[in-house]
Amino acid sequence: MAPLLQRILIKGGTVVNDDCSQLADVYVEDGIVRAVGPHLQLEAPAGLQVIDACNRLVLPGGIDTHTHMQFPFMGTQSKDDFYQGTKAALAGGTTMIIDFAIPQKGCSLVEAYDTWRSWADPKVCCDYALHVAVTWWSSKVKEEMRILAEDKGVNSFKMFMAYKDLYMIGNSELYAAFSQCKQIGAIAQVHAENGDLIAEGAKKMLALGITGPEGHELSRPEEVEAEATMRAITIANAVNCPLYVVHVMSKSAAKVIANARREGKVVYGEPIAASLGTDGTHYWHKEWHHAAGYVMGPPLRPDPSTPDFLMNLLVNDDLTVTGTDNCTFDICQKALGKDDFTKIPNGVNGVEDRMSVIWEKGVHCGKMDENRFVAVTSTNAAKIFNLYPRKGRIAVGSDADIIIWDPKATRTISAKTHHHANNFNIFEGMICHGLPVVTISRGKVVYKDGVFNVTAGDGKYITRKPFPEYVYKRIKQQDEVCQPVPVERAPYGEVGSVQSSRGGK
Amino acid sequence: MAPLLQRILIKGGTVVNDDCSQLADVYVEDGIVRAVGPHLQLEAPAGLQVIDACNRLVLPGGIDTHTHMQFPFMGTQSKDDFYQGTKAALAGGTTMIIDFAIPQKGCSLVEAYDTWRSWADPKVCCDYALHVAVTWWSSKVKEEMRILAEDKGVNSFKMFMAYKDLYMIGNSELYAAFSQCKQIGAIAQVHAENGDLIAEGAKKMLALGITGPEGHELSRPEEVEAEATMRAITIANAVNCPLYVVHVMSKSAAKVIANARREGKVVYGEPIAASLGTDGTHYWHKEWHHAAGYVMGPPLRPDPSTPDFLMNLLVNDDLTVTGTDNCTFDICQKALGKDDFTKIPNGVNGVEDRMSVIWEKGVHCGKMDENRFVAVTSTNAAKIFNLYPRKGRIAVGSDADIIIWDPKATRTISAKTHHHANNFNIFEGMICHGLPVVTISRGKVVYKDGVFNVTAGDGKYITRKPFPEYVYKRIKQQDEVCQPVPVERAPYGEVGSVQSSRGGK
Amino acid sequence: MAPLLQRILIKGGTVVNDDCSQLADVYVEDGIVRAVGPHLQLEAPAGLQVIDACNRLVLPGGIDTHTHMQFPFMGTQSKDDFYQGTKAALAGGTTMIIDFAIPQKGCSLVEAYDTWRSWADPKVCCDYALHVAVTWWSSKVKEEMRILAEDKGVNSFKMFMAYKDLYMIGNSELYAAFSQCKQIGAIAQVHAENGDLIAEGAKKMLALGITGPEGHELSRPEEVEAEATMRAITIANAVNCPLYVVHVMSKSAAKVIANARREGKVVYGEPIAASLGTDGTHYWHKEWHHAAGYVMGPPLRPDPSTPDFLMNLLVNDDLTVTGTDNCTFDICQKALGKDDFTKIPNGVNGVEDRMSVIWEKGVHCGKMDENRFVAVTSTNAAKIFNLYPRKGRIAVGSDADIIIWDPKATRTISAKTHHHANNFNIFEGMICHGLPVVTISRGKVVYKDGVFNVTAGDGKYITRKPFPEYVYKRIKQQDEVCQPVPVERAPYGEVGSVQSSRGGK
Amino acid sequence: MAPLLQRILIKGGTVVNDDCSQLADVYVEDGIVRAVGPHLQLEAPAGLQVIDACNRLVLPGGIDTHTHMQFPFMGTQSKDDFYQGTKAALAGGTTMIIDFAIPQKGCSLVEAYDTWRSWADPKVCCDYALHVAVTWWSSKVKEEMRILAEDKGVNSFKMFMAYKDLYMIGNSELYAAFSQCKQIGAIAQVHAENGDLIAEGAKKMLALGITGPEGHELSRPEEVEAEATMRAITIANAVNCPLYVVHVMSKSAAKVIANARREGKVVYGEPIAASLGTDGTHYWHKEWHHAAGYVMGPPLRPDPSTPDFLMNLLVNDDLTVTGTDNCTFDICQKALGKDDFTKIPNGVNGVEDRMSVIWEKGVHCGKMDENRFVAVTSTNAAKIFNLYPRKGRIAVGSDADIIIWDPKATRTISAKTHHHANNFNIFEGMICHGLPVVTISRGKVVYKDGVFNVTAGDGKYITRKPFPEYVYKRIKQQDEVCQPVPVERAPYGEVGSVQSSRGGK
Repeated sequence: MAPLLQRILIKGGTVVNDDCSQLADVYVEDGIVRAVGPHLQLEAPAGLQVIDACNRLVLPGGIDTHTHMQFPFMGTQSKDDFYQGTKAALAGGTTMIIDFAIPQKGCSLVEAYDTWRSWADPKVCCDYALHVAVTWWSSKVKEEMRILAEDKGVNSFKMFMAYKDLYMIGNSELYAAFSQCKQIGAIAQVHAENGDLIAEGAKKMLALGITGPEGHELSRPEEVEAEATMRAITIANAVNCPLYVVHVMSKSAAKVIANARREGKVVYGEPIAASLGTDGTHYWHKEWHHAAGYVMGPPLRPDPSTPDFLMNLLVNDDLTVTGTDNCTFDICQKALGKDDFTKIPNGVNGVEDRMSVIWEKGVHCGKMDENRFVAVTSTNAAKIFNLYPRKGRIAVGSDADIIIWDPKATRTISAKTHHHANNFNIFEGMICHGLPVVTISRGKVVYKDGVFNVTAGDGKYITRKPFPEYVYKRIKQQDEVCQPVPVERAPYGEVGSVQSSRGGK
Repeated sequence: MAPLLQRILIKGGTVVNDDCSQLADVYVEDGIVRAVGPHLQLEAPAGLQVIDACNRLVLPGGIDTHTHMQFPFMGTQSKDDFYQGTKAALAGGTTMIIDFAIPQKGCSLVEAYDTWRSWADPKVCCDYALHVAVTWWSSKVKEEMRILAEDKGVNSFKMFMAYKDLYMIGNSELYAAFSQCKQIGAIAQVHAENGDLIAEGAKKMLALGITGPEGHELSRPEEVEAEATMRAITIANAVNCPLYVVHVMSKSAAKVIANARREGKVVYGEPIAASLGTDGTHYWHKEWHHAAGYVMGPPLRPDPSTPDFLMNLLVNDDLTVTGTDNCTFDICQKALGKDDFTKIPNGVNGVEDRMSVIWEKGVHCGKMDENRFVAVTSTNAAKIFNLYPRKGRIAVGSDADIIIWDPKATRTISAKTHHHANNFNIFEGMICHGLPVVTISRGKVVYKDGVFNVTAGDGKYITRKPFPEYVYKRIKQQDEVCQPVPVERAPYGEVGSVQSSRGGK
Repeated sequence: MAPLLQRILIKGGTVVNDDCSQLADVYVEDGIVRAVGPHLQLEAPAGLQVIDACNRLVLPGGIDTHTHMQFPFMGTQSKDDFYQGTKAALAGGTTMIIDFAIPQKGCSLVEAYDTWRSWADPKVCCDYALHVAVTWWSSKVKEEMRILAEDKGVNSFKMFMAYKDLYMIGNSELYAAFSQCKQIGAIAQVHAENGDLIAEGAKKMLALGITGPEGHELSRPEEVEAEATMRAITIANAVNCPLYVVHVMSKSAAKVIANARREGKVVYGEPIAASLGTDGTHYWHKEWHHAAGYVMGPPLRPDPSTPDFLMNLLVNDDLTVTGTDNCTFDICQKALGKDDFTKIPNGVNGVEDRMSVIWEKGVHCGKMDENRFVAVTSTNAAKIFNLYPRKGRIAVGSDADIIIWDPKATRTISAKTHHHANNFNIFEGMICHGLPVVTISRGKVVYKDGVFNVTAGDGKYITRKPFPEYVYKRIKQQDEVCQPVPVERAPYGEVGSVQSSRGGK
Repeated sequence: MAPLLQRILIKGGTVVNDDCSQLADVYVEDGIVRAVGPHLQLEAPAGLQVIDACNRLVLPGGIDTHTHMQFPFMGTQSKDDFYQGTKAALAGGTTMIIDFAIPQKGCSLVEAYDTWRSWADPKVCCDYALHVAVTWWSSKVKEEMRILAEDKGVNSFKMFMAYKDLYMIGNSELYAAFSQCKQIGAIAQVHAENGDLIAEGAKKMLALGITGPEGHELSRPEEVEAEATMRAITIANAVNCPLYVVHVMSKSAAKVIANARREGKVVYGEPIAASLGTDGTHYWHKEWHHAAGYVMGPPLRPDPSTPDFLMNLLVNDDLTVTGTDNCTFDICQKALGKDDFTKIPNGVNGVEDRMSVIWEKGVHCGKMDENRFVAVTSTNAAKIFNLYPRKGRIAVGSDADIIIWDPKATRTISAKTHHHANNFNIFEGMICHGLPVVTISRGKVVYKDGVFNVTAGDGKYITRKPFPEYVYKRIKQQDEVCQPVPVERAPYGEVGSVQSSRGGK
């Protein structure tokens, strides 16, 4: 009887939320956390599964804000489908992903949404949601955004400033799309790179005879990312629309975001496992396969101090939330670009290793504590995308998406042992302290000590309501209180002597 | 029977914590929150007091991290004593203050602590704690710091970089004091101004014939504050001791803090009601009394964009927590410096108006939401000083220090109506949206609609344990993991050819 | 007979160049400086005019890098024609202007150049040159740029990022235009404002009922300028083309430039008399005429600390050179926009007062010395636009464009006394220390103590050669030495084991 | 007869000054430049030495602002004495050095000056001057500073913020010394490191068992330098005294200087050959001798992007001038610290290679042009220390300190070929484009194609007048114009109603 299996008592662990940690037991029933407290005394319910969490941490399951499972892209399709991708997620301690439905230019957003639902629903092993991309502009697009927000549970839309002629939209279309996001209570997301410069940069590199993966980075250096980031922030601010910059890859782009936040703008930056855990020196690796394995857009940066810099900003809430851009291609797929880096499918892994990488580079080395870890891997995502406190917190009434984390254990990341469908791992060889030993999704133990207990379709699509308070409360208040008003002047022509006051100061 | 009075049900309000808000009732018994949830169904307990909070917010009571009640200073004593000062606090929605015990150079820290306890205990109307100042250095001081931390519940010590010859200590003493804070698990606090430059600046201004309050700011411009802030951060970082900069008054000092945080340093900045709510242009006011009323150290800044700038950083967690430096002097006391600004007693009000000023300048104008308001007025203070979640959160088990806030109501701040002992208010005339209509301290309604129901001594001294996790978890981890190690080299003399590798790059 | 008049001896003054000052006489003959030195002993040549410069400074005449004389714009034409405008210049100590030939979209650049020549040549009273605008893109435009650079003495081209549908070009056109500038050795100039955002901002302001001049600034706040500045710099850097940002009006745009320079980019910023001497608070002036008189694009900024900030950067060579954007409209012309700020002709005065304003705000108040004054008003312009040392220096062989400056004299700027054609002056009432008492243009005293001695057409068009060394020497060297090279790799397929090196770090 | 040898004609070269380059001949007689111009036609004077400079550059000789020849320090004495050190200088294209006379605490400054004169005068092969250090404070020191400035040609004094107990002075002494510098028209120089933190840092490293050269950097990381830099700037600004920060070694210290300059402060930063040409990763070198060879104070920084960063700021005039801190010790001397890094004599080479290193890293790679090279290696030093245009420029009347530079030639720096007295070179192996082929000092060819023609004592002590205009013109103007004035108020007691204006805003 399935229901019996869904009573779980996690005993003796340290429950870690983003605000504090406490020694407490957690009782789960029917997929929901029912009790949290020290030494819970339960009348042993039928079928209770007791999990010993002594000396371990009990964390809200990770939320990966940025994945592309089975994504048709650059003449191929990303290798992890929604089944294998979400299994990898669970193995790594992530219990929810947010993927992207991306229509071709001219095509319906709702249809894209439906397509992605049809791909994901039968396959997902954990909960998921969908951002939808706005790759062109028309009144129909505008209307479909409204429909998606009101009826389909989509409160975030992504606009591409890169991928010229494919997905890229221009400044005035960005303005229009941001305006509509604001209207319907959605978060505007951007892939922030200057697509015109990328196109020219690629031509230039090829003309110089640079056809290998290093050309990928050379043709779109970090200022190309920083420029677009600043532009997106400026446009969003003109609309007073909240902005979310996906995959922050460089110090300069991150600085632009941090500075905008210091000025009070409502903007969120999402570094990813890749940018926090490795760097772009790999593009200069002598083996083509190795170098190509790191190709993604925007590129990783050759400045080796980048991951550390991004991590520091993540600690300080200059950056807010983490994803992965998980979009895996195997070596054969990457080889599509063996003679021309512009044809290397863009994408890397991350959904499985994100939690480990951030723990290692963030918590283990003393940059952040376990509470901030929960914030940046789970809670903040839940808040921004209006899932909090259902997701992102271990509290009475929350979904039982929980992981048990052993901070003392270590593992070495390797393509040989990972759960992705592809045969390359950008974190190959990284020794990570801290790893998830048990993953509970929807109140069920789905992964324990390396063994899965999950079926395709066990996960559900999660609708997200518009106007998340965490994002919009300030925006609404500003709109109400801070509108400019005209200067009161006598009607033109009635003024007395001109220039009665002094211009010089 | 008093206990009967201490059963309170707050019904229908929006409970606001730092992470989110929810419509929920709150049930309080014996000074502790016993239940929080929508539509609490209680078997009406005897003496239950029901408070209607519909359309109102239910917030954790404010914690003012920085007051000086009845402080003997500059030849006089601050006007608000612990009775009147804490009453003013309660009227403004603050239910806990942290004051400073400040020994003279050469005197015992423990005795100072005892003295302040003897002043405060019989008078306080709300809970309180004490920071202790380190105004000189010796092995005895070091030992007393340990005693205070271990036995007296003091986990924060303040060092003065200003007030030369009175409280100021030098760089090597700062190093020693910070080291001891680290050792005993305390937070090092600094008054960050360069006392040597202040002394010289004052001489210079007086020599120029500038004797009025404007000389106060001119003799210690903001770079004097920024310099000391950077110095304190550098010294603290050398020790890897957490640092807390009290009363951040200027853009440049705040920038120094924000930049340090971006680099991963464990430093907290405390702007105050005064620096967030008004500015230093008042020192140039034509009426001496008015100008003198704003004299405090460090001074308010003449740059009128300062409050807005500080507020933005406070929103973004570049600054973390707010106090007031409440240290009131009336007009007659201020007149001690009528012929010489260096003799004007330094101090302004704030403990009553802090919550209103931050709501008005922060929440009402759309810079921060109500949750961040709770964070910066209460929760973060509780976390830093190791009182969380007993203080700073409305949750089962927390102290019932609660305020009910009407966000629609307005009031105009004025010395005529405030509850301070002095006759001047630096926020005179400010119209504030949002005000506390009920204040509950230790589970008892102590202030409602302008009427107090409180007795001197109702408040208690709150001990604070060392090594607050919010502050020290990272520090400990860093110390464990990040110590430098020697380069392994052959013993001297055994090396082969010198300079076998290239120096030029 | 004329030649006799052209022998001038300036005696006893302090000759000020950008590197240093010295007590020296200057002897001029046939329009050229023939000797500079202390106590020049000349065998009194026939017709020698001796000018006593004791206690005065002898400076290279100013070069105004940015004027629009008799410019057909926004349904009218700027009031100062090339005659009156250059007379005003001479009165203020400026002996050369660089104006803009601006073709309509689709029209010939060379024809525009010819048109402007035909307007200017018969009228100018001082030397002048022409920048040419690139307002659209085609192979013809590209070719005409080459012709202008090679045959017409034009080494600078201006691209508009604002004035949507009129002059604005997009990102890929900017890339193309910058590439051609680089190819032909010209300096790329930009009007840096985001034209899309301006168009939307104007709509928004009008929709809010804001039709007055304050709407001009509100619809294009400084971040609109900063964004475009960063974008232009990024695009120019992708081409490695030198960039010159005209009319820097805001702190944030100036910071973008300064930061780019710190990173080694070849970019120059041109603040103007208006942005250095006044600010945008005037747009909120109660009299419409007054407010409208300040309307220009980009707008002056309401932050009153802007002029001081820009001046500091100008001192420190973060900004390099100064112009005016002199484009005067009288009150009746401004009234075209009385019901709609978007119709107010954009433009202010400056060509006459630039030198005085910079002296007052820069030299008199101790921010810069007289040598830096010469650099930013004359020498740097000559270097950038390849006129140095013919212009911009008092040295043997240089053109005798010289002014005699009385640093002790003062004047009050006023529309009542200025030499512009319009009846409004944005510096009205400013008291300036320092003023030109004699202006020598092309070796002739053309203005002395308020009296002109000059005829329309006395000035000449000055050709400017491409590839100015000051700008291009570094660029060329970089192109030669710093091109990226491909990583050497085994041909694809020959590699051994994949991922032999570690990805994680 | 010697005079005959002193007629030199340099033919066909490109004369490079800081403002521009021109093809010109240079004629020198009796140690002075007598003519500069294209195709000089001289009636062949007796003994004329003609030097062909075709395809070569003719530059003002370098000025090394910072050397320590035969300096008694850390129990030994620097290896290069004034003879060998100045020969090395000449070989590298430097024709003037400025060394430091450094009294012990309590000792006479004038006597120290006399001592250094007595060491240098008989030995120097090129012109030189002396900065004098202020290592303690008293009225006698103050008086001696005046004497040195008025009578001995010393216009710069250096204060140590490091070397606790040896040279370090505290904040109030710095204030006093800066005040006196201001009074007598001298430039205040600082060694900017926090000596207290260094002392503590060293103890800490030794306690951790780190005794090798890496401990040198670990005990005084760059924030120790940045802090002191900010402190010095703040103190100097309080006095309005010009400040010169010697040996800028780190990005963070350089940023502090750049930011101060952007705010209008009169501060100059001096990076050195070492910080521009190599980095502190060497301290972790496996060979102790190698690592120890780089030990200097402040240390080189392990961040490998430091040299590039400093060079960019040097290009942009955020940093102004370059020296070397040449203070060589051989391997045996360095071995004094073989068991304790605090005993390793601090010092590296530089006086010979500075010009080559800056050309290579600055000019050859396209960061700066040849004119800026002249500015930062020679002209700016001459301006700051009041030697311009006697030194630092090739112009009629200037001293004939000239070098002929072959920009195409290359050399490889090595201890095997250098002219220093020690057997280690921190630039070992660096390939440099551009090298001096002829050095002319005081109008005589002293070095040509590797051969010296110079005698000990050929150089002269150069007196420097106080109040250099380049430095002090602004300062004086500020002091005259910008003093604060008291607010005019009614006498105390006569005011009407208190707080008539509003405090809240």
